[in-house]
Amino acid sequence: MKRFVIGIDLGGTNIRSAAVDEDGAILARDKRSTEVGNGKEAVITNILNSIKEVKKRSYDGKLSGIGIGVPGVIFFEKGIVSQSPNFPDWRDFNLKERLEKDIHLPFFIENDANAAAVGEWWKGAGKGVSSFCMLTLGTGIGGGIMLNNKIWHGEDGMGGELGHIIIEPDGHPCGCGGRGCLEQYASANAIVRMAIDAFFSSEASMLREICKDNHDNISSEILYNLAEGGDYMAKDIFKKMGRYLGIGIVSLIHIFNMEAAIIGGGVADAWKYFIEQAKAEIKNRAYRAPGQKVKIEKALCGDDAGILGAAYMAFKGTYSLTSS
Amino acid sequence: MKRFVIGIDLGGTNIRSAAVDEDGAILARDKRSTEVGNGKEAVITNILNSIKEVKKRSYDGKLSGIGIGVPGVIFFEKGIVSQSPNFPDWRDFNLKERLEKDIHLPFFIENDANAAAVGEWWKGAGKGVSSFCMLTLGTGIGGGIMLNNKIWHGEDGMGGELGHIIIEPDGHPCGCGGRGCLEQYASANAIVRMAIDAFFSSEASMLREICKDNHDNISSEILYNLAEGGDYMAKDIFKKMGRYLGIGIVSLIHIFNMEAAIIGGGVADAWKYFIEQAKAEIKNRAYRAPGQKVKIEKALCGDDAGILGAAYMAFKGTYSLTSS
Repeated sequence: MKRFVIGIDLGGTNIRSAAVDEDGAILARDKRSTEVGNGKEAVITNILNSIKEVKKRSYDGKLSGIGIGVPGVIFFEKGIVSQSPNFPDWRDFNLKERLEKDIHLPFFIENDANAAAVGEWWKGAGKGVSSFCMLTLGTGIGGGIMLNNKIWHGEDGMGGELGHIIIEPDGHPCGCGGRGCLEQYASANAIVRMAIDAFFSSEASMLREICKDNHDNISSEILYNLAEGGDYMAKDIFKKMGRYLGIGIVSLIHIFNMEAAIIGGGVADAWKYFIEQAKAEIKNRAYRAPGQKVKIEKALCGDDAGILGAAYMAFKGTYSLTSS
Repeated sequence: MKRFVIGIDLGGTNIRSAAVDEDGAILARDKRSTEVGNGKEAVITNILNSIKEVKKRSYDGKLSGIGIGVPGVIFFEKGIVSQSPNFPDWRDFNLKERLEKDIHLPFFIENDANAAAVGEWWKGAGKGVSSFCMLTLGTGIGGGIMLNNKIWHGEDGMGGELGHIIIEPDGHPCGCGGRGCLEQYASANAIVRMAIDAFFSSEASMLREICKDNHDNISSEILYNLAEGGDYMAKDIFKKMGRYLGIGIVSLIHIFNMEAAIIGGGVADAWKYFIEQAKAEIKNRAYRAPGQKVKIEKALCGDDAGILGAAYMAFKGTYSLTSS
């Protein structure tokens, strides 16, 4: 009987689960609402039901473990969610212990951005790459650092917060409590803010029309569509964003001299509108050898990166459990 | 007979060598001019003579290996100096091979800032600290990254260039080819530049007097002495520098969530004039847990950090040679 694990991407809105075999093939999926508003036990019940559903649909395999990527600060060795912006009442919550009480299989809990980096390393743009930085450009910016084929977690599990590299010392306030973080200049939210700043300029007439003169209607998707239509202002915003992204990557190159920078998340769909500016900053600012060495890659696993990474960790964890 | 190694700090101006025992005690020293201007073989001869001198003075020990810290890009496994600002004609020069031709002992070559980090880790502020970033504030800023008790070298030996984290995206041009690097805001050269910028302000009357109205006479030492005398402008420059240093360390905390940041180099002597500003940035900008965890430490080994680190590598290297 084929062995499989379940990888879960636990978000503030949805729980996305999949049964994954040892080759990284997805055998079955489930997606359901997280229902954060209904409290901790409701979320736990939804996770458990999602696991049961995926397991049921993978009828010809043997489930050996479950990996979960969770946003926030995770003590992955113990499976504790130390704190999470999406689950404010989960302070120092041992998610692993709680789930293992109901399902008698080993659970492996990891930060969601780290899980995405592992997923890309296993099946995507990071295949065969032993050192890279992954930046997930979504509402905010998630980060994962792979060094010698291992995620760098830091002393409290809070390493790899690449979205909070400071890019403008006196720049925009950031949700982290600081200001001028990369996240404020290269995320979906940053793109929307730049568009709001430009909303009443003469170049933004198309944007104003689409948004019915209300800047609350701006989204990064609208800006992407405008860029696709050739809109100058939208293209300019992606260029600005690419410049900042490139500057952040240059700092990472100086620090890590890594093999690759992998860029994922929804904003990466606008790749062609920002990547040239990012690469120009790398060319102009990094030392030649590490600047030429580093591959700037678009993530390949899309929304499945976190699921695959969580699955990989479950495989790796259960292997080491069975071999010890 | 006691075993010892020789640790060497190879600078553009001086060669500083010391015999070091297994406890890190310095048994004998030698210091002589590097004489870069006389060509490669003159430098090699000076290194060899310095080794012989130190060895002669350590008459009751057995020399087992030699470690050298060299500024520049080093492929430490092969002992190759890939490129060095201080030795422009040493391009891809196998220093290890060259020296082992004359002295039949194992040589270990490392970047000087990395050697300093190893020295502090072995005998100084990094003792017992498994993950830290070291910043050596001299003319420029050298960096060393210790992760899990190992130096992170990067793919081409060019990792750890912490002086080139970008702090001001449109800031001062830097010797690295980029602009706005930390080195331009928190090194001795940066302090001098800030003083030049302020030279004709009303607050700089003491500075102008000391420098005889010629800003070419400004040095970081003069500014330190002015600060010691209570000069407002000099103190203000160190505060500015401390703020930028703190901002750089905040980015490192977000990236590494490391145990400590260790600050060495000549500028660190002005510790009391800049460290509060640096710590304030960490307090205001870093996440609470990693910001509170990170120890901000002054380096303890002074000029000997590089020598001790090179010596440690020679011990470690020869141990692994004799045990394999």
